[in-house]
Amino acid sequence: MKDQFYKYIEDLQETITSKLEEVDGVGRFKEDLWEREEGGGGRTRVIENGAVFEKGGVNISAVHGELPAALRNQFQVEEGNFFACGLSLVLHPKNPFLPTVHANWRYFEMYDESGNIVTQWFGGGQDLTPYYLFEEDAIHFHSVCKTSCDLHDLSFYPKFKDNCDTYFWNSHRNEARGIGGLFFDYLKETDEFSIQDRFNFVTEVGNHFLESYVPIVALRKEVPFTIAHKNWQEIRRGRYVEFNLVHDRGTLFGLKTNGRIESILMSLPPNVQWVYNHQPEKNSKEAKLIQVLSKPIDWI
Amino acid sequence: MKDQFYKYIEDLQETITSKLEEVDGVGRFKEDLWEREEGGGGRTRVIENGAVFEKGGVNISAVHGELPAALRNQFQVEEGNFFACGLSLVLHPKNPFLPTVHANWRYFEMYDESGNIVTQWFGGGQDLTPYYLFEEDAIHFHSVCKTSCDLHDLSFYPKFKDNCDTYFWNSHRNEARGIGGLFFDYLKETDEFSIQDRFNFVTEVGNHFLESYVPIVALRKEVPFTIAHKNWQEIRRGRYVEFNLVHDRGTLFGLKTNGRIESILMSLPPNVQWVYNHQPEKNSKEAKLIQVLSKPIDWI
Repeated sequence: MKDQFYKYIEDLQETITSKLEEVDGVGRFKEDLWEREEGGGGRTRVIENGAVFEKGGVNISAVHGELPAALRNQFQVEEGNFFACGLSLVLHPKNPFLPTVHANWRYFEMYDESGNIVTQWFGGGQDLTPYYLFEEDAIHFHSVCKTSCDLHDLSFYPKFKDNCDTYFWNSHRNEARGIGGLFFDYLKETDEFSIQDRFNFVTEVGNHFLESYVPIVALRKEVPFTIAHKNWQEIRRGRYVEFNLVHDRGTLFGLKTNGRIESILMSLPPNVQWVYNHQPEKNSKEAKLIQVLSKPIDWI
Repeated sequence: MKDQFYKYIEDLQETITSKLEEVDGVGRFKEDLWEREEGGGGRTRVIENGAVFEKGGVNISAVHGELPAALRNQFQVEEGNFFACGLSLVLHPKNPFLPTVHANWRYFEMYDESGNIVTQWFGGGQDLTPYYLFEEDAIHFHSVCKTSCDLHDLSFYPKFKDNCDTYFWNSHRNEARGIGGLFFDYLKETDEFSIQDRFNFVTEVGNHFLESYVPIVALRKEVPFTIAHKNWQEIRRGRYVEFNLVHDRGTLFGLKTNGRIESILMSLPPNVQWVYNHQPEKNSKEAKLIQVLSKPIDWI
């Protein structure tokens, strides 16, 4: 399974970065290969200063070895070996009318002393962070998420949509990071689903990613914007940074387990502002966004 | 003691904001009074888009009531009432040749069921974060720190200087946030020092703050700078954000105990950049800064 999934994310990284370069027209992904001292490594691909994407990364990694202390505590085991691989992407478009998108699909295995798998699971999801809300974009994104879920089990979309709303919550601001999408974790083998079923589901979601996002880019990338729109985008990007550095388990886990810092923090936006006590004008588009983010919405 | 110290920080806030307005010449502090639902409140003063200070805050607060859960865990007590007050300041100058400065002086009391003080202490310190290093500025700042310490005990400066280097360490980057200063906490009554001695020391440090920083501002505020210098400042401000949101106990404590978010996060810089895997040119001034931050220096 680990070879099957790693092959999948290798191919998917290629598919996604090729398509995004085509969409951007100007920017090119720069590739960095890196190795992890304790075992494994990754292939980081970052785009900066493109025509559409101000900054973005589409990274894969596969790491293995002894469980880091942080994972031993989390899983309450004294020792063990693990393998983990995944694809992580974040895209920060230049145009404030285009949303930031994040996705991650990953697979994890843990072994006993003889090297047999004792547990294995998939995790991941994808979510959208608009700066100006176009309801049809939110509906499109969620519709594609729902389609890829419904092909496997009708219970998946409502459950993983709720998980996403709960997870991407900036509790210190009492607002969502964005308008959600899917979030799932610990998708293990059960009576109902084999590990191959789990693979089939997660890759279904991955295969639908471009369909969920690229049409929104096509629709909005030429919308004219002013410096005021850009300022608002940069202020909202500050909330994105706050979530990733204060609350995101993945980021904090990476920072505390000696991950490759530049690959982890490629998720941070290129230009960000913090303005003291910024309040949008009443009844403005900016105020509408804040209002929508105050409570999860059923987009479908 | 609590009244004595609160009166002190009220006056000090006035002294510092008046002097900084004079230094800036253009910017004015905007005042916000706020109340804490569970008891107490604060007086936040923020300056934005001044001639010298791009953004800064000089805030006081005095809060009281039942110990929040986070503090009960930290102090390993089941219940109790507390009082805490302090002054916190952060100044982000516009000119990249001017360092960011942070300071905080605070006092804490905890009570038994009858309202008697069971423990009380002072904490605080100040530290400097340059974007371009002028060694004479670092020496000046540390000299004033040392002077205010030496007036009370010759062991204070070496100890509190080391604490500061240890505390303001961006472990995920393996570099210091800045060039340090003083950091002290849990300064309680001992055989050697009465609580009044502690008050006298902490207020000595507070009284020396303007002397430690304003001469540096006067010296550097007119140095011409380019967009390249500004970009470097904004990239380095990203490290400041990373420290405050990932590692700073005070910030995280505030975010997790329902503090006033805008007063806590006034510490974040106004304009920030994250550039993927940015590396300064070899032997440049930018590279020299990184090198200096890789290991604490004895400035005196």
